[in-house]
Amino acid sequence: MSSWENNVRKVVPYTPGEQPKEKNIIKLNTNENPYPPSPAAKAALEAFDSDDMRLYPAPDAAELVDAIAETYRVKPEQVFVGVGSDDVISMAFMTFFNSDKPILFPDITYSFYDVWAEVYGIPYKRIPLTADFRINAGDYSQPNGGIIFPNPNAPTGVLESTEMIESVIKANPDSVVIIDEAYIDFGGTSVLPLIEKYENLLVVQTFSKSRNMAGMRIGFAFGSKKLIKYMNDVKFSVNSYTMNRVTIKCGAAAVRDGEYFRATCAKIIGTRENAKKRLSQLGFTFPDSMSNFIFAKHKTASAKTIFEELKKRKIFVRYWNKPIICDYLRITIGTDNDMQALYDALEEILKEAAK
Amino acid sequence: MSSWENNVRKVVPYTPGEQPKEKNIIKLNTNENPYPPSPAAKAALEAFDSDDMRLYPAPDAAELVDAIAETYRVKPEQVFVGVGSDDVISMAFMTFFNSDKPILFPDITYSFYDVWAEVYGIPYKRIPLTADFRINAGDYSQPNGGIIFPNPNAPTGVLESTEMIESVIKANPDSVVIIDEAYIDFGGTSVLPLIEKYENLLVVQTFSKSRNMAGMRIGFAFGSKKLIKYMNDVKFSVNSYTMNRVTIKCGAAAVRDGEYFRATCAKIIGTRENAKKRLSQLGFTFPDSMSNFIFAKHKTASAKTIFEELKKRKIFVRYWNKPIICDYLRITIGTDNDMQALYDALEEILKEAAK
Repeated sequence: MSSWENNVRKVVPYTPGEQPKEKNIIKLNTNENPYPPSPAAKAALEAFDSDDMRLYPAPDAAELVDAIAETYRVKPEQVFVGVGSDDVISMAFMTFFNSDKPILFPDITYSFYDVWAEVYGIPYKRIPLTADFRINAGDYSQPNGGIIFPNPNAPTGVLESTEMIESVIKANPDSVVIIDEAYIDFGGTSVLPLIEKYENLLVVQTFSKSRNMAGMRIGFAFGSKKLIKYMNDVKFSVNSYTMNRVTIKCGAAAVRDGEYFRATCAKIIGTRENAKKRLSQLGFTFPDSMSNFIFAKHKTASAKTIFEELKKRKIFVRYWNKPIICDYLRITIGTDNDMQALYDALEEILKEAAK
Repeated sequence: MSSWENNVRKVVPYTPGEQPKEKNIIKLNTNENPYPPSPAAKAALEAFDSDDMRLYPAPDAAELVDAIAETYRVKPEQVFVGVGSDDVISMAFMTFFNSDKPILFPDITYSFYDVWAEVYGIPYKRIPLTADFRINAGDYSQPNGGIIFPNPNAPTGVLESTEMIESVIKANPDSVVIIDEAYIDFGGTSVLPLIEKYENLLVVQTFSKSRNMAGMRIGFAFGSKKLIKYMNDVKFSVNSYTMNRVTIKCGAAAVRDGEYFRATCAKIIGTRENAKKRLSQLGFTFPDSMSNFIFAKHKTASAKTIFEELKKRKIFVRYWNKPIICDYLRITIGTDNDMQALYDALEEILKEAAK
């Protein structure tokens, strides 16, 4: 090892789901939305004057921030935007989690939280979920340097109530509490109204799932003016211009199209509820999902085998070779056609496995 | 102050140049390129299928990385890409500057370096430039945790030789040396070939200046495979998907259009050389610039007055109210028409000031 390497920050990076380059696959592995984005986003893209590429974007991305603020009926000063919710949460970790006490998050949850804690040198503690994958509010009353969990949780899809979340926030006035609502629009209720009551609450959302725009990288967060100001100060100390001009335009247009948003969310919810029936019939069990995926375990066949067999049939789902969750597959809700192909493939695979 | 605020990272953020929203202004304050991007970027934008917005981008942004690697005749493993060179340099600070010894950079230089050092808690030391704004290689032989400077330097525009830079790298095998070449294409020679010889050299470039795409946020860097691997590990621990789909497409197309790139750089160099004559005639002195801006001081009129008077006439240049550099204006090279309007305004302002 060369001597300059002594000063290198060494990490085990997060592994995102596969992005296969082949065409004609059914991609149910990264919780993307199976429907195209709002026609308003397409129109904004087409209206974009490419000559404007030469000019820096507005560092405050006001056009996008204002569109989000208006849509969600908050003040622009209560909105933070970033390059996907990963950027938003990463900034929040850097801004708020600077205590010697450990931050707390569930043991089964978004697998980026411990990666951020490691890269930023933040002490952390994983709190086990209950046997039925619930978060026990009482576990979050111990001394801590901050709290984060997704609602609904990932990869379980389990939704917690606003009352439960409020009890966690109430018990932790000395910490920033981050609720990661990446999947909230598929049947949950956002805790957004609580930001008016608790200045230490950050609510994070994204355009990647319910807004059909994972490819554009837009995340956002709501919080008290004070909280957002602190985050923006750190953001402007890291990279002043993160939202590019095309993204700002398309994002602003998309978020204003509430009708399309509600319609596609409803379609996905419909397909999901049907998937619950079909997967049950096929011998799967799963916690009740309020997200755009189902975290399913088969009563006899191994998750690894099903995962590999589906892949052979060009159907990609998510599988983790990790303790506790290695018996499960996380299956993104696709179109009705995607799902029919999945059920057909599963039927075939399970018949073969049962031989 | 609420108790949760004790754990907040508190910083004084970087202040970017103004992005006025008015139309019909002459914008010579943020070193943007006055010409539109390559027609190939426009074509890529128009060819982009908006339905693809729903899918995550390839986390490795291979299409863009490959285009850069081919254009610059290096291997893809020697290329890092990020959301503007600010993102690239920020990642490099986080990855490489983890020593107790101070990192070194010039006292007059890009004003983001000390902001990054502050936000990441990196000790740093500013090394004074010589009286004629040169970097003295010998000053960089002292113990350090890393070295960074732009070449040409900003906001002076002064270019250092490859030999001088190689001597700094040679003297520092224990540190990563970052050469920030944001302005190299306006007449300088990149030290890119040295990455084959020194595995601790990182060469950073950007699409914001010579590639006419500040609004798209693309920065890139070259280094040894080992160096780039370390940076990617940290990048994937912070945000796996930073380059969005539109950016990857447009960036890849633009970088392959070498002809347009060389033609616009040549136009700007021509305008700059003429600007040197005209500004001299108007009573300005300046270090010889090899960038797309001129760092100019007037023999009698104050920089602040000229700055304000130009602004009244809707001509924006950059002025810092800081020691040493407060006598100077940084004037971006615009089109010949932009510059003629500047000379006319300066003539008027200086006549008035001399009364």
